[in-house]
Amino acid sequence: MNIPRQNLRTPGPTPVPDDIVDAMGTPMIDHRGPEFFELITQATAGLKQVFATQNDLFILTSSGTGGLESLIVNSLSPGDRVLSATAGSFGDRFREMATAYGADVQRLDFEWGDAVDPEAVRTALHDDPGIKAVLVTHNETSTGVTHPLPEISQVVKGEFDKLLLVDAVSSLGCLPLPVDGWNCDLVATASQKGFMIPPGLAFVSVSPAAWEAEAEATMPRFYFDLRAARDYLERGQTPFTPNVALLYGLQSALDKLLEEGMESVYERHADIGRFTREGVKALGLELLVDDESYASNTVTAIKVPEGVDNSRLRSLAHNEENVVLAGGQGKLSNSIFRIGHLGYVSREDIQEVLDALARILPRVGFNPG
Amino acid sequence: MNIPRQNLRTPGPTPVPDDIVDAMGTPMIDHRGPEFFELITQATAGLKQVFATQNDLFILTSSGTGGLESLIVNSLSPGDRVLSATAGSFGDRFREMATAYGADVQRLDFEWGDAVDPEAVRTALHDDPGIKAVLVTHNETSTGVTHPLPEISQVVKGEFDKLLLVDAVSSLGCLPLPVDGWNCDLVATASQKGFMIPPGLAFVSVSPAAWEAEAEATMPRFYFDLRAARDYLERGQTPFTPNVALLYGLQSALDKLLEEGMESVYERHADIGRFTREGVKALGLELLVDDESYASNTVTAIKVPEGVDNSRLRSLAHNEENVVLAGGQGKLSNSIFRIGHLGYVSREDIQEVLDALARILPRVGFNPG
Repeated sequence: MNIPRQNLRTPGPTPVPDDIVDAMGTPMIDHRGPEFFELITQATAGLKQVFATQNDLFILTSSGTGGLESLIVNSLSPGDRVLSATAGSFGDRFREMATAYGADVQRLDFEWGDAVDPEAVRTALHDDPGIKAVLVTHNETSTGVTHPLPEISQVVKGEFDKLLLVDAVSSLGCLPLPVDGWNCDLVATASQKGFMIPPGLAFVSVSPAAWEAEAEATMPRFYFDLRAARDYLERGQTPFTPNVALLYGLQSALDKLLEEGMESVYERHADIGRFTREGVKALGLELLVDDESYASNTVTAIKVPEGVDNSRLRSLAHNEENVVLAGGQGKLSNSIFRIGHLGYVSREDIQEVLDALARILPRVGFNPG
Repeated sequence: MNIPRQNLRTPGPTPVPDDIVDAMGTPMIDHRGPEFFELITQATAGLKQVFATQNDLFILTSSGTGGLESLIVNSLSPGDRVLSATAGSFGDRFREMATAYGADVQRLDFEWGDAVDPEAVRTALHDDPGIKAVLVTHNETSTGVTHPLPEISQVVKGEFDKLLLVDAVSSLGCLPLPVDGWNCDLVATASQKGFMIPPGLAFVSVSPAAWEAEAEATMPRFYFDLRAARDYLERGQTPFTPNVALLYGLQSALDKLLEEGMESVYERHADIGRFTREGVKALGLELLVDDESYASNTVTAIKVPEGVDNSRLRSLAHNEENVVLAGGQGKLSNSIFRIGHLGYVSREDIQEVLDALARILPRVGFNPG
């Protein structure tokens, strides 16, 4: 297909830098041979640096949802009581996954656009000592909220010593998430966000406590069996044929990220997050999340002004300005649109979005302030 | 990584043509937007032509094993009686998957290197009327055998009307497999074989009878839920973020295959299969499968001659001749090596392999005939 480069502001897939595209074109190799051994060994070591972990880490050929499924099915049994703290559609999805595999899920819901309150997690764990594990979404992509994971972990691990499963799909590699420092047992992220490569790989880390849970877990699993992944990784392989092309891309992305240094990567995301929120507010638009203590530095949700047609706004941006905005999800479908600002993105990209909005908004009945 | 182009003769991943590599570099798009709608709609229609089916067809972001898992978990319930006919490590894997999800699997084993005997399938189904579904591997990659799928289907569907689940990972797109003509209910294949693109996508087809089974099936599923795939495909989407880069490659591959015409593609594979087997025998080597009625036209297994060190043979080929041979699997690890000849491969590629073997064999203690 003949598709020109767009200012793609979905919160994943994100644009892919040219050198990563070039790396993906490296010739195929035997996934049971010596070159692959080197590739997966290096990529796994690099990912451990980004995860800031000594835990086991695996690269799965699936999108992020598959990685999240692997966290659940490898650590839980049907009937296990699980606390699911959610405030958006990805939190809900994580919960639905656990339910699909027979977990007994206790809901802890917050308003979409709010952050998970660690105090409520404390109360829930206190009131129900039978809970074995807690599911948390680090960065809720559907609302643009970064939940207070260190404080949540302090409760879940520090006070109650439960298993902590973390959806880090739209945070890891963009926002600080020191997996060992924050004591996260099972963490999953995906390739098409902070890692700047196309969708198709998931990365998961597994703590010693998670391995203990794994030994007892009876949820069925085959493709996402992490014990098989561990056994094969010892030989520099994967149980099933991996996405070699994306692994080349990953290797190239890790070189870039680690050369820049993760602190700089995080600072860049924080800067561009603030820049986006300030720019949006300067247009007279209202943020869904206007609290700097939990506004996400990877994606910003903007309330659709009264009387404005969301899909016409996004169509005009796409067709006339080459700017691709994301819509809302679930119950926010019509009431918000979103700007992704993660991975391969610059202030100039965001300025283009703001300029485009300034031109389009009057045409859909809103006068930028 | 700096990897030169090899004569990669693993039975997947296969080499990727340059124009498909270029297509994979097309800029990323919103997987919920209009360009993606067009991409997945066209790719799905093209795949239906290759599958020769009117059934529903889905593109999953996983390797072939994930596609196979989707066939099982969407059609069966724990405790369902399943007949698994196998004669190699991929047949065994398909069986293990059903077992992992709680199916009551009846084994029907054949010697590795033999073909599944439809008469034995008939007897097994006759003797055990409680069997609900049959698992068959069309082309057993570990031995280089193409099982007689039309005859097996005639028994399974024509005589007993059971559900037929087919592993077509190393056959579809290379060997004739008219899914509707052969009445196959659930079929899975993968991107890195006949489709000439890197690993990372699975393609599955679902018959009306399979949908009836799906409505009753209680095996847990989330990432591989085909009902969710169907619901989203109606809107030109996938439930979870798909591998957009490989979809671009797939689109390009389908253009090539359909322009050439599938009959020509099949004839090309049949020709190169015969050429490989004749060439190997001319070297004085012995084929694992020397019966033209079921020798595979996508992969050939060769017995390691008495006294020859298999890993040294393959190392020399790799390091000195730039020819990557596949080893054996499971109980055949030491006793065979394999030449893949599927997807993007020419007679010249195979002649290079034969010439390399002629030079190497004397050095490992075997004199080519």
